[in-house]
Amino acid sequence: MKTTRREIIQMLGVAAGTAVISPVISRGVSVAKEPSHAVDFPWPYSRLDPDVSADISYKGYEVGRCMYGTFLGIIGKLAEEKGAPYNTFPFLMMKYGKGGVADWTTLCGALNGAAAAIYLVSNKPEPIADELFGWYQIEKLPVYQPKDSKLEILSSVSRSTLCHVSISRWCKVTNLKTFSKEREERCARLTADVTKKTVELLNQQLAGTFEPVFPIPEHVKQCRACHDKGSTIENTRAKIDCSPCHFNLGTAHKKI
Amino acid sequence: MKTTRREIIQMLGVAAGTAVISPVISRGVSVAKEPSHAVDFPWPYSRLDPDVSADISYKGYEVGRCMYGTFLGIIGKLAEEKGAPYNTFPFLMMKYGKGGVADWTTLCGALNGAAAAIYLVSNKPEPIADELFGWYQIEKLPVYQPKDSKLEILSSVSRSTLCHVSISRWCKVTNLKTFSKEREERCARLTADVTKKTVELLNQQLAGTFEPVFPIPEHVKQCRACHDKGSTIENTRAKIDCSPCHFNLGTAHKKI
Repeated sequence: MKTTRREIIQMLGVAAGTAVISPVISRGVSVAKEPSHAVDFPWPYSRLDPDVSADISYKGYEVGRCMYGTFLGIIGKLAEEKGAPYNTFPFLMMKYGKGGVADWTTLCGALNGAAAAIYLVSNKPEPIADELFGWYQIEKLPVYQPKDSKLEILSSVSRSTLCHVSISRWCKVTNLKTFSKEREERCARLTADVTKKTVELLNQQLAGTFEPVFPIPEHVKQCRACHDKGSTIENTRAKIDCSPCHFNLGTAHKKI
Repeated sequence: MKTTRREIIQMLGVAAGTAVISPVISRGVSVAKEPSHAVDFPWPYSRLDPDVSADISYKGYEVGRCMYGTFLGIIGKLAEEKGAPYNTFPFLMMKYGKGGVADWTTLCGALNGAAAAIYLVSNKPEPIADELFGWYQIEKLPVYQPKDSKLEILSSVSRSTLCHVSISRWCKVTNLKTFSKEREERCARLTADVTKKTVELLNQQLAGTFEPVFPIPEHVKQCRACHDKGSTIENTRAKIDCSPCHFNLGTAHKKI
């Protein structure tokens, strides 16, 4: 069931009609309402070919790198097939996610673009995003092979959704540098892989056959027992794998 | 100087006209072209009131949390003032960035939304994003105080652009939990702070008075000497502060 503009307006507790930012009472203060004139949200999704979208993303990487690449392979392909509202989106904005957003090496841009696309076309996006991120952490990537290239690119397991960890692990496995052509090619192929997986998941969601298969790892559950919701410390929400950063807990942390 | 649709098409090396995904030759493979039917990119920016935008973002947090909040305070305000093309944007999509994207605690959603907004309205977005991220890492936040609230929320220095680090540091300073109402309020106020800073920077850029003042910290430069571009190891690009994750380098790392 998709959320209509009327439902969004009701949810925000404001009168329907004008599409400007209007204040209503909530939490003792006013809240803002959705200013979009766009069609009902989420935007409709229809089945895509995962391999075709992967090819588009690989090629899109050349134009705008990782985040732009995944978003183009999914929403750009829908724009090609359906036109509006997809073709009203300012695709070039998505270049901002490159290298973990403006090269700050935070969230992998391929995931950032895929997550945006998932939320744009889903009613219940979170399980799909969780599955994609869980898959990304433990899968050996890249596996995509461009049709016209015989160049071999070694793959690695990122163990993290962060650009820095993902790339530095690949550098360690391959003994290649992060500013090398091979690393650029690795990220272009990984962008294609993330798109392919995302489209497979969205197709499953559309067909009603989606079943999550990537659970939170046991060692992360161990961390969650003391640090996540309802725990003694409760100082984080832990979906991401903790161990690539907390590889050394120091002497102050109790033995686990 | 803004990039026109014609320039984008020329950049991609394809014939002007149709707005579908067309292949051209590059890197021995075909690349995809911008499928947007939208107006010239970037979208035009005009001066906003930082405090008004901050209020909108604070209220927007209630609707869609951090990423939605900052994006609404900037692009939503432009939509209110200018209409198209801003009001064609599917604002609700930006909810995906909540809690570091789908609650994976990676990039702070307030920064994710602000970075998207910066790239949407800037020709040279990177210095503005760098400045915002650098500021976020060392500033004591939040400082925003809602007009109708006397509730005091303690502030903290994140030392990182990551949601997890930013929130866990605040929990440590305040001795409060991450699922507490106070932490929600802290993030709503921080969202307002990030918007205010972003609008100030965009206004400076518009007036031609922007000067970066947040340099890469000395201890990060030390890491970059061996790990960034042109170095011996060259296994990352380091803008983010390394020390909140690499707080213990272990015995294998050489003394620094």
